[in-house]
Amino acid sequence: MAKYDLLKTEGRAKRGVFHTVHGDIQTPVFMNVGTVGAIKGAVSTEDLKQIKCQVELSNTYHLHVRTGDKTIKELGGLHKFMVWDRPILTDSGGFQVFSLSSLRKIKEEGVHFRSHIDGAKIFMGPEESMQIQSNLGSTIAMAFDECPPALAERKYVEDSVARTTRWLKRCKTEMARLNALEDTVNPNQLLFGINQGAVYDDIRIDHAKEIAELDLDGYAVGGLAVGESHEQMYHVLEETVPYLPQNKPTYLMGVGTPANILEGVERGIDFFDCVYPSRNGRHGHAYTRFGKLNLNNKKFEKDMRPIEEGCQCPACRNYSRAYIRHLLKAGEMLGLRLMVLHNLYFYNNMMEEIRNALDEGRFAQYKASMLDSMEHGQD
Amino acid sequence: MAKYDLLKTEGRAKRGVFHTVHGDIQTPVFMNVGTVGAIKGAVSTEDLKQIKCQVELSNTYHLHVRTGDKTIKELGGLHKFMVWDRPILTDSGGFQVFSLSSLRKIKEEGVHFRSHIDGAKIFMGPEESMQIQSNLGSTIAMAFDECPPALAERKYVEDSVARTTRWLKRCKTEMARLNALEDTVNPNQLLFGINQGAVYDDIRIDHAKEIAELDLDGYAVGGLAVGESHEQMYHVLEETVPYLPQNKPTYLMGVGTPANILEGVERGIDFFDCVYPSRNGRHGHAYTRFGKLNLNNKKFEKDMRPIEEGCQCPACRNYSRAYIRHLLKAGEMLGLRLMVLHNLYFYNNMMEEIRNALDEGRFAQYKASMLDSMEHGQD
Repeated sequence: MAKYDLLKTEGRAKRGVFHTVHGDIQTPVFMNVGTVGAIKGAVSTEDLKQIKCQVELSNTYHLHVRTGDKTIKELGGLHKFMVWDRPILTDSGGFQVFSLSSLRKIKEEGVHFRSHIDGAKIFMGPEESMQIQSNLGSTIAMAFDECPPALAERKYVEDSVARTTRWLKRCKTEMARLNALEDTVNPNQLLFGINQGAVYDDIRIDHAKEIAELDLDGYAVGGLAVGESHEQMYHVLEETVPYLPQNKPTYLMGVGTPANILEGVERGIDFFDCVYPSRNGRHGHAYTRFGKLNLNNKKFEKDMRPIEEGCQCPACRNYSRAYIRHLLKAGEMLGLRLMVLHNLYFYNNMMEEIRNALDEGRFAQYKASMLDSMEHGQD
Repeated sequence: MAKYDLLKTEGRAKRGVFHTVHGDIQTPVFMNVGTVGAIKGAVSTEDLKQIKCQVELSNTYHLHVRTGDKTIKELGGLHKFMVWDRPILTDSGGFQVFSLSSLRKIKEEGVHFRSHIDGAKIFMGPEESMQIQSNLGSTIAMAFDECPPALAERKYVEDSVARTTRWLKRCKTEMARLNALEDTVNPNQLLFGINQGAVYDDIRIDHAKEIAELDLDGYAVGGLAVGESHEQMYHVLEETVPYLPQNKPTYLMGVGTPANILEGVERGIDFFDCVYPSRNGRHGHAYTRFGKLNLNNKKFEKDMRPIEEGCQCPACRNYSRAYIRHLLKAGEMLGLRLMVLHNLYFYNNMMEEIRNALDEGRFAQYKASMLDSMEHGQD
């Protein structure tokens, strides 16, 4: 069903388009994170259309424990629930299981753990994750994997990756079964596999080769941005991405800063997602092409310029740094909303600029100038 | 400068239009409360234009203690600061002085008190209140008054009202002086006087007559909705409003529920303001023509209808009760925003319906049917 067209390359950087039942995704793309089916900072799906968002990302675990995927299926699926007709990617729940829950036990069949909300016992394995994501009816489902700590020992990582591969095969089988059911929300749901291996090149490469053979709809690089250095992360991408199919989309999970994204694109990544723009926005930190601004700073008290001159986001088109700082100081939600709208727009707009640069064969130049401007630019 | 045209009456109910330098205000009107220059619930001035808001109301005291009226004047005034080119009414700060601050001392010259933010000593009298409001440059400034408790003793109320009258005269003199200054933000700033007298009819009436002679731009009834019963409030309006000039706008401060507003209109009130729609919205309570709904209620978990069928607000045009309930349960700001947008729209839209009914001589009928529907209507 899905098809990825590689439109252009520049070095390893890819410019593509991914066709889905919920519309085309132009890549490289940044997915906007709406954990429980809403972007933090009072941003609605209607707003997302104003800020160049192509793909919304929701968290399987959170939607499973609150309101519940079965209820959402009854109501017609996540697209209908949150009123978003464009692509949605759901994560597998695995990352939350491993990061949020205490008392977890990993077994071959899956993971036993307790809900972070009410302590209820939950079991999640590959089949359960696929079932939940099928109930949500997302455009792209992620395989259920284990994300071992960046600094885990080799033996642990080897065993974990081997299990992740076995889990991936079970995910693929289960998704095929679910997509064929009569009452399935999205019979065209796609599956992305996830490469793991911590910072061990050979494990990463072997795993990439192994999952590449499974002919999935896309491939993610997981287990990065979890404690290793940026240099280690870039190194892993350089070593691993060449072993993932070039004619399928690649996804660098949970990454990252604008600089991380530029480096990721250069190393062949199509999809990104990160909570930075919304989380930093809620803390008063704005991304601009001249670097980050801390709007809490006293020096912005009488600054009637927009957050970023020339920016076409809903915050910059209307409101000043002085007003937004005033709102942040007064604890007004509107301040957080305007910050988040700006930051997400900044990310989405940067991706558009990246795509344009790739289209015109000047990505290397764009990347260098953007990195320089963000580091040394004058506000 | 300002002129109030009484377009139509029905009994004592008035249908008017108030011309200001920031545009016409069609009355009866509900003013949307944006305490610190922003409506709570992440609602921006851009949003206000979508939800039929005519007048924004900001709080002098809050803006004085945070960011500061002098800074706002330097930046061009409150209209420019919050990006709103339509009418703004500022209160006098008196109500906050009397309700928020501890350690206050009322003297003839004004009130000594401490900031609720940092405990700093502040003095505010009629001249200071006018100066702050002049710095903000609001369309309509409110006179500095004392709002005695609803159940205050007669002697206290008599003395307080006499002082409020002396303060009012000082306000008028000071505003004339400020409006004539060369660097004033809004040389056409208007002044509304405030009738006080707790629940003592004769004090209220004598005070109304006295202030009516001062030929102010408008007249408010203050000191209501502060602890007395609805019946007492309606009684005060019946006794007092006839002594306020019919050819000037009247304003019932801090009121109230939709039913209170309908009763107020019937008794000759033009302007209303209240925090109920935004505060109740943030608590998950939605106003509809079939009464209030508590969206936290389990029964809305799978209810895919909008908050109110047929409502044209940004929440109802897009999102369901089920989704909004989910957001409220998950503590997502978007839930609060959608609730507040709906509730303010409900109020603003009801005012439009009231005006239409008055235009067509069927206000009594509209009021009866609306009250009946809100009390007995089936959702």
